[in-house]
Amino acid sequence: MSSYLSFDNKVFAQFALYATVVLLKTIFLGPSTVVCRFVKKAFANQEDTKLATSKGKTLAVNLSDPDVERVRRCHQNDIENVVPFVLIGLLYVLVGPSATVAVYHFRVFAASRIFHTFAYLVPFPQPCRALAYMTGWVVTFSMSISVLSVAAF
Amino acid sequence: MSSYLSFDNKVFAQFALYATVVLLKTIFLGPSTVVCRFVKKAFANQEDTKLATSKGKTLAVNLSDPDVERVRRCHQNDIENVVPFVLIGLLYVLVGPSATVAVYHFRVFAASRIFHTFAYLVPFPQPCRALAYMTGWVVTFSMSISVLSVAAF
Amino acid sequence: MSSYLSFDNKVFAQFALYATVVLLKTIFLGPSTVVCRFVKKAFANQEDTKLATSKGKTLAVNLSDPDVERVRRCHQNDIENVVPFVLIGLLYVLVGPSATVAVYHFRVFAASRIFHTFAYLVPFPQPCRALAYMTGWVVTFSMSISVLSVAAF
Repeated sequence: MSSYLSFDNKVFAQFALYATVVLLKTIFLGPSTVVCRFVKKAFANQEDTKLATSKGKTLAVNLSDPDVERVRRCHQNDIENVVPFVLIGLLYVLVGPSATVAVYHFRVFAASRIFHTFAYLVPFPQPCRALAYMTGWVVTFSMSISVLSVAAF
Repeated sequence: MSSYLSFDNKVFAQFALYATVVLLKTIFLGPSTVVCRFVKKAFANQEDTKLATSKGKTLAVNLSDPDVERVRRCHQNDIENVVPFVLIGLLYVLVGPSATVAVYHFRVFAASRIFHTFAYLVPFPQPCRALAYMTGWVVTFSMSISVLSVAAF
Repeated sequence: MSSYLSFDNKVFAQFALYATVVLLKTIFLGPSTVVCRFVKKAFANQEDTKLATSKGKTLAVNLSDPDVERVRRCHQNDIENVVPFVLIGLLYVLVGPSATVAVYHFRVFAASRIFHTFAYLVPFPQPCRALAYMTGWVVTFSMSISVLSVAAF
């Protein structure tokens, strides 16, 4: 039944769509950190400081700029949540779930993580970000229970 | 031979089981960090401190609480080891390995990472955690050699 | 068309090869950090310091050794870039891309990330590392556009 992993399978096509959207969102936080480092002139490596200083001048490394660190925490939170979603989601597609239920999982996850990024970077007052985090987490947990119930018995 | 990725294939079913177990363990460290932040009142963002203070009071952010940082290091170590295990493990399943050898790999990895988490959080005296770390690492390395030997020739 | 995920499919075989190479490179940064911690006697946990001191002596934890932190940043950059490459790459293989174009993507990514690691650890003067980072990033972005164009329509 490996035809599960085919774009002809609506569940897989939707999974591929939303997984790629949230992974793209995640990798865009890399260049966002770089831009923030240039704006705040807060670089992590001595050789990087040369990129933002005129010849002859020196700039100390800065590992604790609050704005840079906020983008980095947002990025790290994505790594910790988006990557397990995609990995467990791929196994979940192979379980052959109901298309309606599956697509609902993927959409709620993607929406919650996009909202989470705005809530982190703007930032919105709490508990906005906490609720977005919990929503995405519960989606991944729910898919993992489906996988376990098929894999274990 | 894509039927390798089917729950009818015992190797894949066992991979899905152990991969989901170790990923679940990993994502549980997210809420564990949150709980630890509340217990120690050590939050990374100013807006988060409002969740744990009565109105009118303020609390400084704290990025270096030793207990919170220990849970975060444990989480990071899982990201660095569990995610490569699952990715290389999926390719390894597609190599069509012997079921006995493959399942042995998955079980040793899962056991070593569960032990690693306890060794990190309790903590156990060294070299408990170091041995658990090395065991999991060697399993991933062993699977990657199997994948490379098929993929390269 | 799930036979896409078979070592008989040249695109998949090449993906498996390069994905495993870059993942292996990534996980080798774990032990590299450990070695660097021993050389610099800079450990993150109190129980770890016992591994490098004679009985009766004590050593404080050190979370800010510049050499250890450099290896850790290099490792973290791999996690943030190699893992999304492998995940999006797997979906990309299922799109059924032209073998020439696909293999070119995988090779450029692997070469750019291997160069990135040397550029980070030696370190090379900038913009060596920046260009290697951008090259790998663009490869992952390019594959994700291919996946999205098939998944969305």
